[in-house]
Amino acid sequence: MNEAALTLEGWYALHDFRSINWTAWKAADDEERAGALEELHNFLQEWNLAEQDKTGSTAVYSIVGQKADFVFMHLRESLEELNALENEFNKTTFAQYTTKTYSYVSIVELSNYMASGDGDPKANPEVMARLQPILPKSKYICFYPMNKKRDLSDNWYMLSMEERRGMMRSHGMIGRGYAGKVKQIITGSVGLDDWEWGVTLFSDDALHFKKLVYEMRFDEVSARFGEFGSFYVGNLLNEQLFEEMLKL
Amino acid sequence: MNEAALTLEGWYALHDFRSINWTAWKAADDEERAGALEELHNFLQEWNLAEQDKTGSTAVYSIVGQKADFVFMHLRESLEELNALENEFNKTTFAQYTTKTYSYVSIVELSNYMASGDGDPKANPEVMARLQPILPKSKYICFYPMNKKRDLSDNWYMLSMEERRGMMRSHGMIGRGYAGKVKQIITGSVGLDDWEWGVTLFSDDALHFKKLVYEMRFDEVSARFGEFGSFYVGNLLNEQLFEEMLKL
Amino acid sequence: MNEAALTLEGWYALHDFRSINWTAWKAADDEERAGALEELHNFLQEWNLAEQDKTGSTAVYSIVGQKADFVFMHLRESLEELNALENEFNKTTFAQYTTKTYSYVSIVELSNYMASGDGDPKANPEVMARLQPILPKSKYICFYPMNKKRDLSDNWYMLSMEERRGMMRSHGMIGRGYAGKVKQIITGSVGLDDWEWGVTLFSDDALHFKKLVYEMRFDEVSARFGEFGSFYVGNLLNEQLFEEMLKL
Amino acid sequence: MNEAALTLEGWYALHDFRSINWTAWKAADDEERAGALEELHNFLQEWNLAEQDKTGSTAVYSIVGQKADFVFMHLRESLEELNALENEFNKTTFAQYTTKTYSYVSIVELSNYMASGDGDPKANPEVMARLQPILPKSKYICFYPMNKKRDLSDNWYMLSMEERRGMMRSHGMIGRGYAGKVKQIITGSVGLDDWEWGVTLFSDDALHFKKLVYEMRFDEVSARFGEFGSFYVGNLLNEQLFEEMLKL
Amino acid sequence: MNEAALTLEGWYALHDFRSINWTAWKAADDEERAGALEELHNFLQEWNLAEQDKTGSTAVYSIVGQKADFVFMHLRESLEELNALENEFNKTTFAQYTTKTYSYVSIVELSNYMASGDGDPKANPEVMARLQPILPKSKYICFYPMNKKRDLSDNWYMLSMEERRGMMRSHGMIGRGYAGKVKQIITGSVGLDDWEWGVTLFSDDALHFKKLVYEMRFDEVSARFGEFGSFYVGNLLNEQLFEEMLKL
Repeated sequence: MNEAALTLEGWYALHDFRSINWTAWKAADDEERAGALEELHNFLQEWNLAEQDKTGSTAVYSIVGQKADFVFMHLRESLEELNALENEFNKTTFAQYTTKTYSYVSIVELSNYMASGDGDPKANPEVMARLQPILPKSKYICFYPMNKKRDLSDNWYMLSMEERRGMMRSHGMIGRGYAGKVKQIITGSVGLDDWEWGVTLFSDDALHFKKLVYEMRFDEVSARFGEFGSFYVGNLLNEQLFEEMLKL
Repeated sequence: MNEAALTLEGWYALHDFRSINWTAWKAADDEERAGALEELHNFLQEWNLAEQDKTGSTAVYSIVGQKADFVFMHLRESLEELNALENEFNKTTFAQYTTKTYSYVSIVELSNYMASGDGDPKANPEVMARLQPILPKSKYICFYPMNKKRDLSDNWYMLSMEERRGMMRSHGMIGRGYAGKVKQIITGSVGLDDWEWGVTLFSDDALHFKKLVYEMRFDEVSARFGEFGSFYVGNLLNEQLFEEMLKL
Repeated sequence: MNEAALTLEGWYALHDFRSINWTAWKAADDEERAGALEELHNFLQEWNLAEQDKTGSTAVYSIVGQKADFVFMHLRESLEELNALENEFNKTTFAQYTTKTYSYVSIVELSNYMASGDGDPKANPEVMARLQPILPKSKYICFYPMNKKRDLSDNWYMLSMEERRGMMRSHGMIGRGYAGKVKQIITGSVGLDDWEWGVTLFSDDALHFKKLVYEMRFDEVSARFGEFGSFYVGNLLNEQLFEEMLKL
Repeated sequence: MNEAALTLEGWYALHDFRSINWTAWKAADDEERAGALEELHNFLQEWNLAEQDKTGSTAVYSIVGQKADFVFMHLRESLEELNALENEFNKTTFAQYTTKTYSYVSIVELSNYMASGDGDPKANPEVMARLQPILPKSKYICFYPMNKKRDLSDNWYMLSMEERRGMMRSHGMIGRGYAGKVKQIITGSVGLDDWEWGVTLFSDDALHFKKLVYEMRFDEVSARFGEFGSFYVGNLLNEQLFEEMLKL
Repeated sequence: MNEAALTLEGWYALHDFRSINWTAWKAADDEERAGALEELHNFLQEWNLAEQDKTGSTAVYSIVGQKADFVFMHLRESLEELNALENEFNKTTFAQYTTKTYSYVSIVELSNYMASGDGDPKANPEVMARLQPILPKSKYICFYPMNKKRDLSDNWYMLSMEERRGMMRSHGMIGRGYAGKVKQIITGSVGLDDWEWGVTLFSDDALHFKKLVYEMRFDEVSARFGEFGSFYVGNLLNEQLFEEMLKL
């Protein structure tokens, strides 16, 4: 039997992509719209507080193109909290002016391919900071889900631990070349959603997303074993920018 | 000709995933909503009675993310009963505030790859308890449908009984490592629905779903021969939690 | 050039799957609903007459799960008649309370892999009874479309007539094991619809569908060359059961 | 570098599949419906004139099953004319009672795999009659789009001109066996739509479609290299039959 | 580790495909329609100004067939500007008469497979003119997204730089044969959208699209490694033609 890589898990994650129903939004009267914006404002405040309390973190970005208009990426301690966030939002008047376009359920994950292995990693504050990260407020976000392929002779899960570790090391080297330019959050979704991992990238230059992902594609891990879902790219939304986006 | 594994079948199963139409739910007046909740209450009661009478079992869970808001997993003695449950629900006022998102028709199944083979297994009360199981009230549910691959040299159905039995044994060992942590219900759907099996997992720790499914993925049965559909994960709903979810 | 199997064709077939728009059905007033039921009654009567006249046959079943609420499987002498049946139904008030979910156009077919080959088979009343069959009123129906694979080394259409005949013979043996338990109607759809064949099974025990299809899956014809679409399973509807289903 | 087959192109083609919104059609009042039918009548007249003027040709057929209710297959000299036809139709009241279900953009094409190669083929009236064909008024139509496969060792585009010519010759022989029974129009769509070719067949016996396509499927060109989209089959609609179809 | 080709990037691109909701457009009153046309007029003017100021470029084309009615292809300096263009348009009354059908996010790209490599290419005005191109006003547009395949032995990303360069050179030769006939804009979308590249072709003869793409398909780069998405083809829209299209 083949050995699985051990992983460490942190906060649960929900990527919640939505579009705005502009026709309904325009048809609403000023009072209704003001009420909806107030609700949105309250949520954003509440989510900021969770971040200050270190009980979670939420990133809010617009999405370019027709796939969605914006995304809420929530990190929280449990599936119950994520579900409560969803339901709470769904019950608002503001939510009635949006439509669901895509969501992703996963959990922040560190893989131990490169682990040194001494002591309890969860006792290490650096590890904990990566498992329960405060999401950066970078100018751009990029999200995509992915699998490791299981296709005849290109089957990641039939490789030995040794082979996988070697390839992941080389893969990690490319990532390291973007240190300081791109912040990467890996969330695992085996048993939780349709793909095996979600990759969320943050950067102040969207071109780094392209360069990083393109460079990695020539790496054997991606070239032979990477299977990719849809890519979403967007711009940071703070409260002011969100209101601007919604202003008629 | 290749020999199929014998299987034992128990109750028929219907997984019925639904979303809530929040806009309509909010637009309803208090009386309408109270009536709808009363209907829901009656169903939940009725399904509890079926469980007490051992004529079936129903699990009710919320679903995290946009794929659905909740699932009813019904086990009953016949396709007619499952169909009647669906239609009865569809006729309620509550159902008018929901939309169908996915369903799965199957039948509880025990495969005999590991069977000892003495006597009529259906005379064995332990076997019957697994064929007509009372679904656990664990905190979390995970559901996914799957196939065994038939892709050129990775063709499960072209393997000998011997080879299949060997791999299933190793596969079963991983499952046994989660005994007491994860309860697994396998339902067969060959000839009944689009995938060959449905896997429903119950646990008090959602992380076990990820760890179990990930560990199994390195096992040859899954690595070479597993083909997986969408994964649904959710939180237990009892009557009180369901009402809370629907409260505006 | 490779030799195609000769086939005999009988009646054209239309499988017409529909769902009920329960919200609209409930919103209709009693008179409207009564009128719609009267139309449905008239159709069912008319289709019975066609069966008595041996100008066609129609099976009516509910469908379990969300894929559809019911199916009309019509056999008639020409595409024009099938098209007329559709259009006539679409113009009724009852049809306005339904939505289309899936349909399949094909023609009843006997393949000659096992033909003895003496004389005109269409002069044989037994052959004609299989080409223009009166559909059974079994308790359960199962429908699925399928292809023979053309995937690199697993290419049915590149096999010799000899090889195909050998495999079909073994395949037929499994079917014969279910004689008296499952009635099978094969309809060909090459050049008529998206899959190459439609398989419609009738039985008084739905479990036979699972056992038959599972057993066949280990047969080389299915294991290496079978490609399957969606499976639909349902319960017999006669006039009374249909009205019960629609009763609020 | 591999040599492409030269092709000759004639009229541009638009296959425009639509369904009727029966609920809206029934809800319209008599006057509205009469006006819509008048518009439809005018279009059919206009398209007849184009045919008489040899500036184009249009076939009008109903479609059996739920994929569509009817198709307009337009041949015209330019993309602008096809686009104008669409837009003109979309602006009618009649169009408001229909929904778009599928369309295909292509151009009538003769491949030169069998070309004799002397002189300018476009000076040949027989060639021109095939490039700018008047569509037959046969009782039945069949349409499907297709690709030539590029899948590892089954890659049409990696074959030599010699190999392709040999296989196309054998393929053409089957087609010739249906001369007088099936009229075939090949339209090329590389660079114009999602598949590489559209095949439109006309016959007075729909069974010929099945027999022709099935026989060809055993031919190496189709068996190893054919990739097929959806098949649409339907009955001729002239003005009277179209009105009958729409009559309530 | 395999070496990626270096690329130069210019303006960001958004292809925004839309359909017209003709039913709503016809139901609007004259004043509403006039207002909507005025908004459209203002956008077209504004986009012309951006082109004059060399801060971007926008192409406007109708689309033939049901996939869309028109496309805006915007080139701008940043993702924020593209997002602002979308949102501004979505807020107009005119946009309420359209529906989104497809979009593509990418960035103008020059690959360096053929680079000479001396000095800073961005100091070269010819290079800059290709990275920040003013889109031609040709009569026809063709757009399609594509990937380089990663399928077992046909894996572009496992080839050496040498092999890739050789094939791209031969590929480029075909393109050069269409110089003066077809203008090609390559936009990269790795890390930005679901495919790796978008190809936008402009020509005064739509037949060139077919001939160019067909010829390239026999080239090894496309034959073995090209994976293509949907093809969109359309006619130039200037302000007058757009108004004509919308005139009832």
